[in-house]
Amino acid sequence: MLLRNLKAPDGVFIDLLVEDGKIVAIGLVGTLAASDEEIDCGGRLVFPGFVDAHAHIDKTLLGLGWYRNEVGPSLQDMFDNERNLRMERAIDFHQQSATVARRMIAAGTTATRTFVDIDTDIGLKGFEGVLRTREDLARGLSIQIVAFPQSGMLVRPGTVELLEEALEQGAEVIGGLDPSAVDRDPKGHLDTIFGLAEKYDRDIDIHLHEPGELGAFDLEEIVERTKRLGFQGRVVISHAFCLGTIDDAYFGRLVELLLENDIAIMSHGPSGPRVPPPVKQLRNAGVRMCTGNDGIRDSWGPLNMPDMLLRTFLLAYRNNFRRDEDIQVALDIATYGGAQVIGDAEYGLEPGNRADLVVLDGENQLEAIFERPERWLVMKGGNVVARDGACLV
Amino acid sequence: MLLRNLKAPDGVFIDLLVEDGKIVAIGLVGTLAASDEEIDCGGRLVFPGFVDAHAHIDKTLLGLGWYRNEVGPSLQDMFDNERNLRMERAIDFHQQSATVARRMIAAGTTATRTFVDIDTDIGLKGFEGVLRTREDLARGLSIQIVAFPQSGMLVRPGTVELLEEALEQGAEVIGGLDPSAVDRDPKGHLDTIFGLAEKYDRDIDIHLHEPGELGAFDLEEIVERTKRLGFQGRVVISHAFCLGTIDDAYFGRLVELLLENDIAIMSHGPSGPRVPPPVKQLRNAGVRMCTGNDGIRDSWGPLNMPDMLLRTFLLAYRNNFRRDEDIQVALDIATYGGAQVIGDAEYGLEPGNRADLVVLDGENQLEAIFERPERWLVMKGGNVVARDGACLV
Repeated sequence: MLLRNLKAPDGVFIDLLVEDGKIVAIGLVGTLAASDEEIDCGGRLVFPGFVDAHAHIDKTLLGLGWYRNEVGPSLQDMFDNERNLRMERAIDFHQQSATVARRMIAAGTTATRTFVDIDTDIGLKGFEGVLRTREDLARGLSIQIVAFPQSGMLVRPGTVELLEEALEQGAEVIGGLDPSAVDRDPKGHLDTIFGLAEKYDRDIDIHLHEPGELGAFDLEEIVERTKRLGFQGRVVISHAFCLGTIDDAYFGRLVELLLENDIAIMSHGPSGPRVPPPVKQLRNAGVRMCTGNDGIRDSWGPLNMPDMLLRTFLLAYRNNFRRDEDIQVALDIATYGGAQVIGDAEYGLEPGNRADLVVLDGENQLEAIFERPERWLVMKGGNVVARDGACLV
Repeated sequence: MLLRNLKAPDGVFIDLLVEDGKIVAIGLVGTLAASDEEIDCGGRLVFPGFVDAHAHIDKTLLGLGWYRNEVGPSLQDMFDNERNLRMERAIDFHQQSATVARRMIAAGTTATRTFVDIDTDIGLKGFEGVLRTREDLARGLSIQIVAFPQSGMLVRPGTVELLEEALEQGAEVIGGLDPSAVDRDPKGHLDTIFGLAEKYDRDIDIHLHEPGELGAFDLEEIVERTKRLGFQGRVVISHAFCLGTIDDAYFGRLVELLLENDIAIMSHGPSGPRVPPPVKQLRNAGVRMCTGNDGIRDSWGPLNMPDMLLRTFLLAYRNNFRRDEDIQVALDIATYGGAQVIGDAEYGLEPGNRADLVVLDGENQLEAIFERPERWLVMKGGNVVARDGACLV
């Protein structure tokens, strides 16, 4: 298939030839030979597919009617409320994850890393639902699954065994969570997570909401194990709120540790008043970064939506990115940065890569972050998977 | 005109009768007598018109092509860059303000308070351009003008005289700006601003970006003059970043001062890492609040757009509002709160008030803040001024 007359990221008008799911040639508009199947893209912008590197597609309540949120303020309130809600409403994890995944595809997301809650109440039901969605929608969205002990691990005996089952059945990544604040045992929590990662040869992605010095302590503990066990390049710390709330000197030392051990940071330009991890300083230092939409319209709240252009805007907004070169950093994190972190080696708008791309109206890529037009066409592995904002998968 | 089958804020389906620009009756759906002119609203949601109580419609570069932002980081860099750009590009303030005002109307904003830059380079050109827009688009948008010394007042001799001319020619409000940080003379700046307000009997709206103790000092100075000159109920402090960055005890004392002198606060859920003014604590204490979109796609940056549902979302996002009752506070500030602050006594979805309203698709009002559907119909003073996202004025 030949996509005619696209506006490339640098503003040049190009044609793009796709064969066997890959981009095989890119040339100035009008320079590629005609093809049996052509789409005239009318000079619209082309982006590589968006990468939502931090999602929770099992959790969403989208499609079930507005969820009236009266949940208390603590993390524990939110864990407990969510577990109870799932049982009471008998949430169908396959249906829910498919609902939000189809909206992600419609908005141009072509790959995601999603955390899936595993606990002793629901066991592997969420995981199994997302596995089915991964299979059903593979044509439109690559789904990488993190086995995630959302409600705690050591405080809920039996959880480790369930995580092991999920890893055996195809979860690609092992997830951890606030080693001090939730399990109240940072050594035990991290030894267990890294132990599972070693045993099953899996990458690690740890939610670290803990602020200030507590989070920084656990970050140091993650670094120590990454180094000792040779997990350089295989660990992501998600949220890492502590990086926004410690003093500059300590921040500098932690950045050195992240770089020495090639640990990546996921930040989504978080909601709330607190200072977020400073994206520009982290990127300038060379820290690998990704971003994602986190939980969408779930019992945690309605603040996130499944649109990576909106997420790019929020990442820019929370970091006060006003200059073009800074906003470009946010977009890079939502595309190439995410692909790198989740290990997609065939990603990007260059010949030889998988044809995952998004076409939409706009003057240039940065403007599209703020206008957020409907996605005119979304292609995944060479297949058209969304048109005019509607998912076709 | 009879609007049939609207979903009221409380979820009840209603009919709404408009005569002579006012809402004259509201009844359960099907209970009002037929009218010559009827619109079936198909059960869509109705909101009161949105109030953008802090805009800069003279500044926008919308419609002039993407502005490549390479501006330095300081406030002074931004002032200087903007003044130079205006001269170089010979900005047509009438055209620019009309361009953004029409997008505001299309998005359901029916009233705005806009600051207009007045300085010794452009004189009253910006003011005159916005005056024309106010007249041209009066059918669709109420525009209240603040005479605003964006580039400083005492540091640029001649500015006070220009502000006086603008007040004589119809600016409704006198604006001030960072009395210490810009004019380097808080006493002189505030004495002058309050002096003009007394002389011309006008309300006051002061941009206070100054953080921490410096901003708090100037806030106290504003309070002192408000009290001494009897300006209770007539002063707004916009941004008031200091309220997010002082300690709790000092914050408590300042809130008491704001309440005693009935001073309102404008917060728009600011971009950037800093802790914003805590909306919930201010509202719970009884401080009057409004919000607005600030500058849209101007030389300060592209982070804001002319959509008050997006602004409501950002106000909720920056304050981490997840519970329904908290999100409702953000929406109240973007509607009734703004109308109260700018002095619109005929505002609201009740019989007797001016028929300023917005109709759009959605399950309920809170969901619409996050889905932000196209505005199906916008009515201003009983006239339909936008349909299907397009301005008709």
